Amino acid sequence: MRKFVTDRAKRLLSISCQYQHLHRPLSSSQSRLFSSDPLSSSSSMASPSGSSTSLTLQTINPKVLKCEYAVRGEIVTLAQKLQEELQAKPGSHSFDEILYCNIGNPQSLGQQPITFFREVLALCDHPSILDKSETQGLFSADSIERAWQILDQIPGRATGAYSHSQGIKGLRDTIAAGIEVRDGFPADPNDLFLTDGASPAVHMMMQLLIRSEKDGILCPIPQYPLYSASIALHGGSLVPYYLDEATGWGLEVSDLKKQLEDAKSKGIAVRALVVINPGNPTGQVLAEDNQREIVEFCKQEGIVLLADEVYQENVYVPEKKFHSFKKISRSMGYGEEDLSLVSFQSVSKGYYGECGKRGGYMEVTGFGADIREQIYKVASVNLCSNISGQILSSLVMSPPKVGDESFESYLEERDGILSSLARRAKTLEDAFNSLEGVTCNKAEGAMYLFPRIQLSEKAIKAAEAVKATPDAFYCRRLLNATGIVFVPGSGFGQVSGTWHFRCTILPQEDKIPAIVTRLTDFHKSFMDEYRD
Amino acid sequence: MRKFVTDRAKRLLSISCQYQHLHRPLSSSQSRLFSSDPLSSSSSMASPSGSSTSLTLQTINPKVLKCEYAVRGEIVTLAQKLQEELQAKPGSHSFDEILYCNIGNPQSLGQQPITFFREVLALCDHPSILDKSETQGLFSADSIERAWQILDQIPGRATGAYSHSQGIKGLRDTIAAGIEVRDGFPADPNDLFLTDGASPAVHMMMQLLIRSEKDGILCPIPQYPLYSASIALHGGSLVPYYLDEATGWGLEVSDLKKQLEDAKSKGIAVRALVVINPGNPTGQVLAEDNQREIVEFCKQEGIVLLADEVYQENVYVPEKKFHSFKKISRSMGYGEEDLSLVSFQSVSKGYYGECGKRGGYMEVTGFGADIREQIYKVASVNLCSNISGQILSSLVMSPPKVGDESFESYLEERDGILSSLARRAKTLEDAFNSLEGVTCNKAEGAMYLFPRIQLSEKAIKAAEAVKATPDAFYCRRLLNATGIVFVPGSGFGQVSGTWHFRCTILPQEDKIPAIVTRLTDFHKSFMDEYRD
Repeated sequence: MRKFVTDRAKRLLSISCQYQHLHRPLSSSQSRLFSSDPLSSSSSMASPSGSSTSLTLQTINPKVLKCEYAVRGEIVTLAQKLQEELQAKPGSHSFDEILYCNIGNPQSLGQQPITFFREVLALCDHPSILDKSETQGLFSADSIERAWQILDQIPGRATGAYSHSQGIKGLRDTIAAGIEVRDGFPADPNDLFLTDGASPAVHMMMQLLIRSEKDGILCPIPQYPLYSASIALHGGSLVPYYLDEATGWGLEVSDLKKQLEDAKSKGIAVRALVVINPGNPTGQVLAEDNQREIVEFCKQEGIVLLADEVYQENVYVPEKKFHSFKKISRSMGYGEEDLSLVSFQSVSKGYYGECGKRGGYMEVTGFGADIREQIYKVASVNLCSNISGQILSSLVMSPPKVGDESFESYLEERDGILSSLARRAKTLEDAFNSLEGVTCNKAEGAMYLFPRIQLSEKAIKAAEAVKATPDAFYCRRLLNATGIVFVPGSGFGQVSGTWHFRCTILPQEDKIPAIVTRLTDFHKSFMDEYRD
Repeated sequence: MRKFVTDRAKRLLSISCQYQHLHRPLSSSQSRLFSSDPLSSSSSMASPSGSSTSLTLQTINPKVLKCEYAVRGEIVTLAQKLQEELQAKPGSHSFDEILYCNIGNPQSLGQQPITFFREVLALCDHPSILDKSETQGLFSADSIERAWQILDQIPGRATGAYSHSQGIKGLRDTIAAGIEVRDGFPADPNDLFLTDGASPAVHMMMQLLIRSEKDGILCPIPQYPLYSASIALHGGSLVPYYLDEATGWGLEVSDLKKQLEDAKSKGIAVRALVVINPGNPTGQVLAEDNQREIVEFCKQEGIVLLADEVYQENVYVPEKKFHSFKKISRSMGYGEEDLSLVSFQSVSKGYYGECGKRGGYMEVTGFGADIREQIYKVASVNLCSNISGQILSSLVMSPPKVGDESFESYLEERDGILSSLARRAKTLEDAFNSLEGVTCNKAEGAMYLFPRIQLSEKAIKAAEAVKATPDAFYCRRLLNATGIVFVPGSGFGQVSGTWHFRCTILPQEDKIPAIVTRLTDFHKSFMDEYRD
């Protein structure tokens, strides 16, 4: 069997990230940058005769071709195909259902929405029932009151109108107040840009920062592939820094410095640092000291800190607590003049898990008024984000309080979800660690486990023979045998020669034992089949 | 006074579009292309000392700097400031309220949503009330039935889950069926991509088509500035073609050909033609014959037809009817092999006017499977559009039918809105035409009038003195004097030396007389003040 590459020194000499080249691992180099050199075959304009259009893969924007997004990639496409087969012909596979563990999509796996949030949304969608007597019997008193409050914040009570391009001012006031409660430092509603989920906010910042492949963005490896995809689409260079699996996916500032200098020496101007806390796909929660070092690094280097804080409510271990980077920087005495910081938040994660509502915001601090105007202009081109998502963003930052009619039920729903997630994380972590050749760090937070799997030479050769990366090969075999959908680690980036997969902790608790059994059985037979 | 430039031959010799350079009219040239040459001052990377970040207007992405979006531009920013002043100090201006005629945002001006649509949305947001007896008293029977139908189309009835990246399959089935009813030709749900309003769909196509400033997109002048903004953000070249004001904003295919050839001679590869029908800001509805010529042109040249059909329900004159480009091309016998066609639709327009819901779709036909996969991949990076918007898209393409409980009230609401819009369009058109030096084409469709105003040399010089274009100068003066918000024609593009503004037809009918009076009084005093 192949030996684990556990030696950090050795790792630093031989690192690459395969995620943008699923079928063709890159040559190893610690400082490998993902630049957006146009593909060599992309410049022909010739129209193929007999076709309706001159458009071919050779003539579309090569940045689009280059972009990859693994969590909805080929494994998921295969899963959708299998699901259709199961529907058309029940019993056609050895499993009854597809278990989507590929994506942080809680409600698709049975998680129920928070009742209070949905009551308010329904009332804002159809305000003409607010005055009716039947409504009292159907909705909680505080949801009715909150709906009135929100409607009064919307000019003309028009929930069907475009809003200010940053979002409805009254809702931004509520969110800013929620941030103040969370952080203990002031928040300005004019710093908030409400967006359709966090993804468009990330794109907006990449669009602002990236001019060419000579502009680099420091991203963790492993990373959430929105970042590599967005950097590719905007034609920049992903400058990787490496989370240390051996220390629970630790982030070492010395590595940030090293990668930054290395990028500089190649003519890459690093413009921003992406930090995902709690980590996706890695589940670690940063320690306060570590966050201070990161802030200091960004301040010293004059680069923008892009803080992905969408999992701020998802912390499962008592010894760790979420601290926003804004709170950390303010507690260090740093203000607007010291650090350019963007914090991303979303209604899709947390205990709410309202992915389909596409709500979110970014808090933009430490930028000049002229730059802010440019961000506003780009936001205005798409007019505004959806109002239901805006309302929901205000609700998650201002949930029911002690004394409100819904408070007890809200608390029960919230804590029920979070404690169940913590149990599921632990059960799955233990299950992975009990598998031969698999090691799995704890999910301190977020919604994922990212176990490492040691694959035999025989398995690696079998993967090569079908032009797959070994981790994709394993995931495909797992899906075909069990209906369980994992995402290969190569979709997120991983140290060269190591293999991982990402698994969400989201399947409902009553399904976890069956998942563990199916996974364990499959894994055993896979390992036996490919033993060297 | 300056003479109207009515001679078409003269116009063709002297055309420019000012909309990307509000304060600095370009040198005249019929074939002026809007290319994305980087700004000369944009390459410095130096960090200004004493600042928190190296980010300045000189170091952000110059494509962002170049992008303009007039309908939320400087005039609107001024309007928001005046509104705040009015709120803080009532009576501080000579008017009581700001009248936003700048943007097609019906519900912000008091238009009520269609009751049935909102009932269904509310029920889908909070499905747990569907079974309750009180619900029967609050909601129409067919809205309850429709909500059940929709929930059954959503896997796990989870309206809070990410959907398929093209949108929920069952909703796409409904939309496809609605398109078939509209056109009389088949529609495939797999051709539909549901998006957060039409704007992200337009961006997605521009992203796919544009590789560099050597790629051109043929756009009407005047145009809706989403197009110029999106082309600028993606670094392409806007290749203008000119709608003929003298013939009711006629589109001449000979001009398309001329502009295409001219672009080719400059090394610009034209990849697509944008047609907005009904027209924005120009309000014309294309004749069927004209549409056939356009289809033939795209087929012959092998370029993609991007059909902005978001105003398909907004036609106000009996002699014109909306025909989709898909229907036209299919009725010509052209299929998938003959024409690459994208049709954009939105829930923001029509009689529904649900701008804040951010729903819409594009129907993509005549592209190879490999290109479609690339579009899907880009859609998947943002996961999916918001589910309420998806549901609403299905509702507008499948409203209540004869026999449904809501049918009569739905019809009354719909026809009330559309006939009122037709009356408002006519009243405002007549009002503009009664002003000295103003001529205004009929709004056959859409939501706007685009009157032309003849400004004196004195007015033009006064504008120059404050570094404004003459049309922006007029609009600013109008706003300061009356609270009425128009958008200067330079934001849309106009023939060199002519001046226009865009005015929506959306203010409520009872406000129109006051608007006309205020406008007329202002205009008279403006003309007197600046008489040569």
